[in-house]
Amino acid sequence: MTHINDNFLKLKAGYLFPEIGRRVNAFCEANPEADVIKLGIGDVTEPMPLAIAEAIHHAVDDMTNRETFHGYGPEQGYAFLRDAIVKNDFQSRGVDISADEIFVSDGSKCDTGNILDIFGKENKVAVTDPVYPVYVDTNVMAGHTGEADDAGRYAGLVYLPVTEENNFVPPLPTEKVDLIYLCYPNNPTGTVASKETLTQWVNYAKENDAIILFDAAYEAFITDPEIPHSIYEIEGAKDVAIEFRSFSKNAGFTGTRCAFTVVPKTLKGKNSTGESVDIHSVWNRRHCTKFNGVSYIVQKGAEAVYSEAGKAQIAELINFYLTNAQLLREGLEAAGMTIYGGINAPYVWLKTPNNMTSWDFFDHLLSKGHLVGTPGSGFGASGEGYFRLSAFNSRDNINEAVKRFQKVVG
Amino acid sequence: MTHINDNFLKLKAGYLFPEIGRRVNAFCEANPEADVIKLGIGDVTEPMPLAIAEAIHHAVDDMTNRETFHGYGPEQGYAFLRDAIVKNDFQSRGVDISADEIFVSDGSKCDTGNILDIFGKENKVAVTDPVYPVYVDTNVMAGHTGEADDAGRYAGLVYLPVTEENNFVPPLPTEKVDLIYLCYPNNPTGTVASKETLTQWVNYAKENDAIILFDAAYEAFITDPEIPHSIYEIEGAKDVAIEFRSFSKNAGFTGTRCAFTVVPKTLKGKNSTGESVDIHSVWNRRHCTKFNGVSYIVQKGAEAVYSEAGKAQIAELINFYLTNAQLLREGLEAAGMTIYGGINAPYVWLKTPNNMTSWDFFDHLLSKGHLVGTPGSGFGASGEGYFRLSAFNSRDNINEAVKRFQKVVG
Repeated sequence: MTHINDNFLKLKAGYLFPEIGRRVNAFCEANPEADVIKLGIGDVTEPMPLAIAEAIHHAVDDMTNRETFHGYGPEQGYAFLRDAIVKNDFQSRGVDISADEIFVSDGSKCDTGNILDIFGKENKVAVTDPVYPVYVDTNVMAGHTGEADDAGRYAGLVYLPVTEENNFVPPLPTEKVDLIYLCYPNNPTGTVASKETLTQWVNYAKENDAIILFDAAYEAFITDPEIPHSIYEIEGAKDVAIEFRSFSKNAGFTGTRCAFTVVPKTLKGKNSTGESVDIHSVWNRRHCTKFNGVSYIVQKGAEAVYSEAGKAQIAELINFYLTNAQLLREGLEAAGMTIYGGINAPYVWLKTPNNMTSWDFFDHLLSKGHLVGTPGSGFGASGEGYFRLSAFNSRDNINEAVKRFQKVVG
Repeated sequence: MTHINDNFLKLKAGYLFPEIGRRVNAFCEANPEADVIKLGIGDVTEPMPLAIAEAIHHAVDDMTNRETFHGYGPEQGYAFLRDAIVKNDFQSRGVDISADEIFVSDGSKCDTGNILDIFGKENKVAVTDPVYPVYVDTNVMAGHTGEADDAGRYAGLVYLPVTEENNFVPPLPTEKVDLIYLCYPNNPTGTVASKETLTQWVNYAKENDAIILFDAAYEAFITDPEIPHSIYEIEGAKDVAIEFRSFSKNAGFTGTRCAFTVVPKTLKGKNSTGESVDIHSVWNRRHCTKFNGVSYIVQKGAEAVYSEAGKAQIAELINFYLTNAQLLREGLEAAGMTIYGGINAPYVWLKTPNNMTSWDFFDHLLSKGHLVGTPGSGFGASGEGYFRLSAFNSRDNINEAVKRFQKVVG
């Protein structure tokens, strides 16, 4: 009989969000009249900006004419989009990234998982705890871990706790690691990394010949001018970091699907005999062999994110969600809760009241307040006792959610 | 320094199509006035059917309204599309596949590569020779092979030659294998598999507890009512086969990106202790963890493939490309060439004249006829001395290409 990849059997329970979905569905079936407000999955709710919709409409019309039809595009993405990315996301911040270092994809979830294809099993991998579960689960699938312990920590991974005790700043590893996942603005804690913190990490990576996998999916929510949007704003980061970016949360592309990964040409790894190998060319080979490019019409939509009208409409969107985050923060603090994040990020991270476990608080909120959030323990053992709320929702829902919180928790 | 996955270094040269692209670009730069006709990559050329474009326009408008906006969709695809697929592609042929056995994706290239994530390294893998290079290259990347020999055959893989000597019917393996890639209608040879041939394979898989990875990306080109469109038309295939389908070649989605994979719930593998494991649930876990669903607007376009108008417009497209294939066949046979395929498939597979190597013939055609095709040896050692032509082109280009062929070869 055909062997399956046994590493999949090490995975604990379902992936977090499907598990939440199952519990919510069960509750809604049992309580069909309940008006459940979902602040769980970080999924955008506001309509697609018109500049983007217009660009897609135009691109669909392109497809209906033989002369302007587009078949296979470059696997790495069209030049029109890669150029717009480089100009607006990097050069505008004084960061020297070139268009051929950009790999357009259909999502950062895919990219952060797929990137492991190109790295060897010998690497020691560090993640923060709590952490976006995809980083961990894809390492488990790839065979980079042993079994999980009762708290859900997999043998072989290096966990870097981020809690209120260390002000959510991950400590540098005490053992040498080769790959480090960092996500800023952070999912799930909604906290940010200062220039000093990122500089420490870049220096660590240089000193230890490590590579940082930097997930900047939420960079658009940064309002503080002192906080870097890209790790490449840190001197020397191009030699030690891959950066993941997404249109999901800034431009509302969770259902439209477009993202990109930056792999600098200066980035090096080593082969089993210790020779230096160009990471860019290995990733390019992976990308061209296992991916066929993003839909032309979607790339045209993504390009419009950088038009003048697109920028203005996106700024409104971001401002809308950040105001939601502020309302959540203020409303929950008024109810006596302890709150983190939610200033330069669309996530609010709260301490569960009365030392409830994260899942107990989940069930409590759902049954008493008809509110859905994400249990902190779903993001890692150190997330136990915390809870994530997403600011992606209508203003009415946010206001109503705050009222219900104040009743259920107060 | 971070270890790279050394298996990537086993890969020979570039992936086939980028290599062709490089040679063509070099020729075009040196000969800017040359009117090069490309019959290389199997990329569609005709405009998107209007029924599909209308559906996408409508879906884009959905996205601009809060009430009809779509964020994250189900990772496996929307029910509207999975239901349409099941009804039209399977139930209409008497095949009992259910909607939750369908996994919608952004391309069969991705799916055929990604599927290896869920299988163990212990499996013996068989491929036909010649073969779609992605099957081989992704096995190399996954560490399922040793090094390649001078002919390009990787140690550890079982190659099943398909040549004119065996009438392009792959022989059953003489050693036990666990995973078998089959592609029908075949890329690159343009040949088809009879019900009898597929029954032999299903029986082989049952007797040997093997799994068939069946790539049916070109099924829409089958005109012979005796030829199965799906491997599930064969009794018992649901217990031994995964099927890959695509909208790329029937509906012209190479640049729009949508495909799907069928993983029957009855399919079993085994873990390292020999216990039976449900493949569907393992693949579902992989799909939910490393993929975030296909763009809503693209899935709406794919749904329109199954509307009455969509079906009629697609039938016209298919007929157009099949007529191209017929013109190529007849024109090249008139020039004295030996031709295979191109009847129930959009590819014509020809023997190179005068025992030229495939790449020599490529260079000859390019320089003398300004014609681009795909060297058979690029698909495997047994493809040496053959050459693939794609029927995806305008009628004018096909007619002009036939004329040039007759000059260059005649």
